[in-house]
Amino acid sequence: MGSTFGRLFRVTTWGESHGPALGVVVDGCPAGLELNEEIIQRDLDRRRVGQSEVTSPRQERDRVTILSGVFEGKTTGAPISLITYNADADSSKYEPLRDVFRPGHADYTYWVKYGHRDHRGGGRSSARETWGRVAAGAIARQLLRTVAGVEVYGFVRELGGITIETFDRDEIDRNPVRCPDPVAAQKMVAAILEAKEQKTSVGGIVEVRARNVPPGLGEPTMDKLDALIGYAMLSIPAVKGVEIGDGFAAARLRGHEHNDPFILDNGRVRTLTNHAGGMLGGISTGEEIIVRLAVKPTSSIARPQRTVDIHGNERTIVVEGRHDPSICPRVVPVAEAMLLLVLADCYLMNRAARV
Amino acid sequence: MGSTFGRLFRVTTWGESHGPALGVVVDGCPAGLELNEEIIQRDLDRRRVGQSEVTSPRQERDRVTILSGVFEGKTTGAPISLITYNADADSSKYEPLRDVFRPGHADYTYWVKYGHRDHRGGGRSSARETWGRVAAGAIARQLLRTVAGVEVYGFVRELGGITIETFDRDEIDRNPVRCPDPVAAQKMVAAILEAKEQKTSVGGIVEVRARNVPPGLGEPTMDKLDALIGYAMLSIPAVKGVEIGDGFAAARLRGHEHNDPFILDNGRVRTLTNHAGGMLGGISTGEEIIVRLAVKPTSSIARPQRTVDIHGNERTIVVEGRHDPSICPRVVPVAEAMLLLVLADCYLMNRAARV
Amino acid sequence: MGSTFGRLFRVTTWGESHGPALGVVVDGCPAGLELNEEIIQRDLDRRRVGQSEVTSPRQERDRVTILSGVFEGKTTGAPISLITYNADADSSKYEPLRDVFRPGHADYTYWVKYGHRDHRGGGRSSARETWGRVAAGAIARQLLRTVAGVEVYGFVRELGGITIETFDRDEIDRNPVRCPDPVAAQKMVAAILEAKEQKTSVGGIVEVRARNVPPGLGEPTMDKLDALIGYAMLSIPAVKGVEIGDGFAAARLRGHEHNDPFILDNGRVRTLTNHAGGMLGGISTGEEIIVRLAVKPTSSIARPQRTVDIHGNERTIVVEGRHDPSICPRVVPVAEAMLLLVLADCYLMNRAARV
Amino acid sequence: MGSTFGRLFRVTTWGESHGPALGVVVDGCPAGLELNEEIIQRDLDRRRVGQSEVTSPRQERDRVTILSGVFEGKTTGAPISLITYNADADSSKYEPLRDVFRPGHADYTYWVKYGHRDHRGGGRSSARETWGRVAAGAIARQLLRTVAGVEVYGFVRELGGITIETFDRDEIDRNPVRCPDPVAAQKMVAAILEAKEQKTSVGGIVEVRARNVPPGLGEPTMDKLDALIGYAMLSIPAVKGVEIGDGFAAARLRGHEHNDPFILDNGRVRTLTNHAGGMLGGISTGEEIIVRLAVKPTSSIARPQRTVDIHGNERTIVVEGRHDPSICPRVVPVAEAMLLLVLADCYLMNRAARV
Repeated sequence: MGSTFGRLFRVTTWGESHGPALGVVVDGCPAGLELNEEIIQRDLDRRRVGQSEVTSPRQERDRVTILSGVFEGKTTGAPISLITYNADADSSKYEPLRDVFRPGHADYTYWVKYGHRDHRGGGRSSARETWGRVAAGAIARQLLRTVAGVEVYGFVRELGGITIETFDRDEIDRNPVRCPDPVAAQKMVAAILEAKEQKTSVGGIVEVRARNVPPGLGEPTMDKLDALIGYAMLSIPAVKGVEIGDGFAAARLRGHEHNDPFILDNGRVRTLTNHAGGMLGGISTGEEIIVRLAVKPTSSIARPQRTVDIHGNERTIVVEGRHDPSICPRVVPVAEAMLLLVLADCYLMNRAARV
Repeated sequence: MGSTFGRLFRVTTWGESHGPALGVVVDGCPAGLELNEEIIQRDLDRRRVGQSEVTSPRQERDRVTILSGVFEGKTTGAPISLITYNADADSSKYEPLRDVFRPGHADYTYWVKYGHRDHRGGGRSSARETWGRVAAGAIARQLLRTVAGVEVYGFVRELGGITIETFDRDEIDRNPVRCPDPVAAQKMVAAILEAKEQKTSVGGIVEVRARNVPPGLGEPTMDKLDALIGYAMLSIPAVKGVEIGDGFAAARLRGHEHNDPFILDNGRVRTLTNHAGGMLGGISTGEEIIVRLAVKPTSSIARPQRTVDIHGNERTIVVEGRHDPSICPRVVPVAEAMLLLVLADCYLMNRAARV
Repeated sequence: MGSTFGRLFRVTTWGESHGPALGVVVDGCPAGLELNEEIIQRDLDRRRVGQSEVTSPRQERDRVTILSGVFEGKTTGAPISLITYNADADSSKYEPLRDVFRPGHADYTYWVKYGHRDHRGGGRSSARETWGRVAAGAIARQLLRTVAGVEVYGFVRELGGITIETFDRDEIDRNPVRCPDPVAAQKMVAAILEAKEQKTSVGGIVEVRARNVPPGLGEPTMDKLDALIGYAMLSIPAVKGVEIGDGFAAARLRGHEHNDPFILDNGRVRTLTNHAGGMLGGISTGEEIIVRLAVKPTSSIARPQRTVDIHGNERTIVVEGRHDPSICPRVVPVAEAMLLLVLADCYLMNRAARV
Repeated sequence: MGSTFGRLFRVTTWGESHGPALGVVVDGCPAGLELNEEIIQRDLDRRRVGQSEVTSPRQERDRVTILSGVFEGKTTGAPISLITYNADADSSKYEPLRDVFRPGHADYTYWVKYGHRDHRGGGRSSARETWGRVAAGAIARQLLRTVAGVEVYGFVRELGGITIETFDRDEIDRNPVRCPDPVAAQKMVAAILEAKEQKTSVGGIVEVRARNVPPGLGEPTMDKLDALIGYAMLSIPAVKGVEIGDGFAAARLRGHEHNDPFILDNGRVRTLTNHAGGMLGGISTGEEIIVRLAVKPTSSIARPQRTVDIHGNERTIVVEGRHDPSICPRVVPVAEAMLLLVLADCYLMNRAARV
């Protein structure tokens, strides 16, 4: 249960890390949108591991196939089903983890909830599941770009205690940590390699932004744009916090510092500053949407850790395998995807706002 | 649209600040729960303004009436409708705000979305709307207490830059800022009064916790417990960030510091520490749930502010009226309510987890 | 649970027959729609009992009050809350029914499901609940009339075995049985009076139609227009069957008789006949929508009936009280309302159909 | 949009007749249920065409593959993804239908709604889509059988004007028309063959029943069991009517004839008769659930028919191809599946009914 996101642009992911395939069904994408596998693959390629020395060297077959909902290069309004096949993975190395709970992982909670779980590679709780989110996000990106010129991008703002000091958007895709500050990027890479050597991992902060978002998106009360973003972002594995605009820093500001004055800009209502991060009262203002996510350090570490098993024994385990010492660079495309899903959904909902 | 929260424990609020009444409908509360107006009123009384020198002196009629769903002291399974009537409010003082956008408020975004809005007292975007959330939360509290002994409480952790240094839970309801540290509480009161004098406002951080939460609550993937909490908390007016467990601080920890080791405690699986804040893989562990919210400084301030009106004129406004210089103490019961709603909903959902 | 209908035009009813009030919350009505209590009351007045010799002489206070969502004569996009207060009803006459199950009623099933029920006047299962449906339907009518000139009307096609032989739409509101054939109407009245005298009741068939429905409403697959109509109609108390267009008669036709040929009518695609009742593949064609409902004879009859009580005793009961010997005339406005709710919901959904 | 059915047992189908594959995702099946491909295939085999002289001789590859949600023979609580691959179908014969609307089909309505459609084999509106319903229904069957011994079966009650006169449940699967009366079965076969020869088609009535349904399923008001069944059944292609228990015949009964007296049967509350078809007030009584569906004659007929095309020309078409002259026998397993989906969903919902 709980594998669907969205009200009108509905995304359902399925699949386990070591099952035969993973996929996603997008129900509610409007008809007439230009779409093909290349458009989706572009976003998926940015998600792939094995991209650099600081991410896991595993090979994953991420190739997307469109199984339905697109005809002669355009969406038909029918559900769009996307699939990727898993290579024949060797699950034998997960055998020792069958009955033991890795600290920081979902092993224990799945076991306590369901009584029966696919332990291989984390099963359903694996980051592999985000493949479907990114694939669906690519469709949302195509929709929002087409109808409103919306642009969503993300980057690593902080990693292992190192924070960016400069911002060059072009820099983001030039370094393996997706950092807009080349100097900080180098330090982040060093921090990751050091963590790896010390058999530990590091966390960080990912930021996602959206430009050209039409004003009016989001519903008052429960389904505020802020709320849906919080929902979306905290559904990403390893994310432990989310903030909008100034976020937690706003807690230390005073009202006259935080309020964004309204101004007229060539007849258009805008705000002089953007402490609010692009939304007021749960509805987009038209200013840039700014979201930050706290990403915990990767739970899989090669150090001995204290734990218990399903038989009620205390145990010590070492989680072997090639894991990313920081998941932050890989969270970036997923966070972009989730913001895109929220915006696409709110965009369609907003069509019903007025008579 | 978007006035409903929850999947099985469904809460729909309605009503505007200056309309004849406000209310909430709770559909999905199980039958057979002991319930009456006193139980609900208890939580509502903690929400009331006019409680101290640091909150707004306005008088609000918060008295709840149960209109349906309860028979002879017990719920029947039918929707529970709760109502409170607004006193005949004088809306005339809002007349000057009819066509102008208060900075930091939802005036502009409602106008741009709907074209037509009830400007009186903020209308639907008023904090008055949270009455229904707290009333519904009281029912969720009664349900969770009855079925599992769950206990939810909140407090102000930081306000106007002052952070608690000690924690005494009994202290929370003894001071007007709902602060568990009496020394910090005094400083917070002083900070609020100073802000008031300076015609500005202050933000802060609210924390909410839940004890005795059964393990297994929350659904994997999209409807993670974390995600639903993020959704719930960021739907509260003035909240700009939410974090679980160590939250943003986790971004600066290393894996071996952040992972909570599993231990056996009288045969029960527990964690030695609780950096995760009571959930792993989106599912409750049984440890205490810890959530923090960033609350922005109140938008209504008595200083001149730059803005525009619906006719396309630049304007300067001063938002008169008796507004709380910090909304943090009043966010506490609302945040408790929202956490209760999430937990009640997840508790019922979890009944369908296993054959 | 289960008190909400609709996806974008969401209607939630609440209240029991002998509670203090009944109401409905409509969330999702677009902003800017002209609305006031008179517009809603008009439909409610058609629902009222005590209208004639053939309906129950009970007096019900059906007056609607708008509590939210409308400002200065127009909807604001916020939830519209409607309420009507019950007169101080004398519940004492229901005391003998507290522990016994009336045949044909929901007494037993509520008891077996919930263990605890409000027995007074049927509680939640009373036809009183349809007040909220008709009130919400009036808003849907106003929306559909405004945006598309849609016109929905219903009538009694058959009652107590008497079927209409002529059709004059103006006749419908001229007789107490809402029958478009004045001769049949007289016979139906006689049939009702005869059933009353014989301490029994009669069933019948209600028909509802919609004109000027835009083509394209309804979603393929699960949320077909047909499916949503079936859902809506079979949620009305006492309805045991629903058919679209030729319905069950279509089961006896041959393909070349049933298929409606497409023609061009002043450049517009239409069908020559309308066996399909206005929809193909679950989507409206633009032709008249035709729906018929089978209404069972009223369950409350003044004859001795065999039954059991909650204590496990066999009993004989006579259901006293002033009950309609046929509910058909009163089902008409409810069926209209439900069709209006489906169409309003589908109309808003359809705005998201194309890029 | 609208490809999902269910609230807790959520079923989403995807795929077009001539696309590479079709599938279904079931989210919400409880963990711990024994499940494998054989169990699902059993129901799918009953759905297959090419089974006899009276159904279409087309070969379809209906083999199911489980892609997720099952581990070591048991469900895990994760979404269950099922797929079947389409053989390389020759779509060229559909080329003449690219721009013309077949009477009785969804061609026109899809075109008017979406502007862009996959015309090959009916695309999304093809009966091929029901593959996923039957596959999901098999999982629901396994769940309901396991937890409550529920048994669902269907049959053809009437076809081409011929109605059953005897009932032998074992007979149903012995003849190609799924008729429980062997004499009527022969006549039905003859009626189909005659219709085929006359280049037309015949409709009929399908009946579905469920035994051992626990009392208490279904929610009052909107989500009545009756309503959900109406929703489910009218979402099946070609179904134009649905009735519960006595259905339309109830419209001609009197109250004392239709009311089912309650009796005690070994201490258990039962009804002496079952005119109500197993539900009262929208909630199951525990008696057999009885549902009937009106199935229209197949729209594809080999006679010249009058129609128009997308360019605004009047046309005459003959729908070539090997189509079933009556779809009734094939509706049986689909109707069973839909009833199973409703019951599984209501069964899980009911777990939240009481404290």
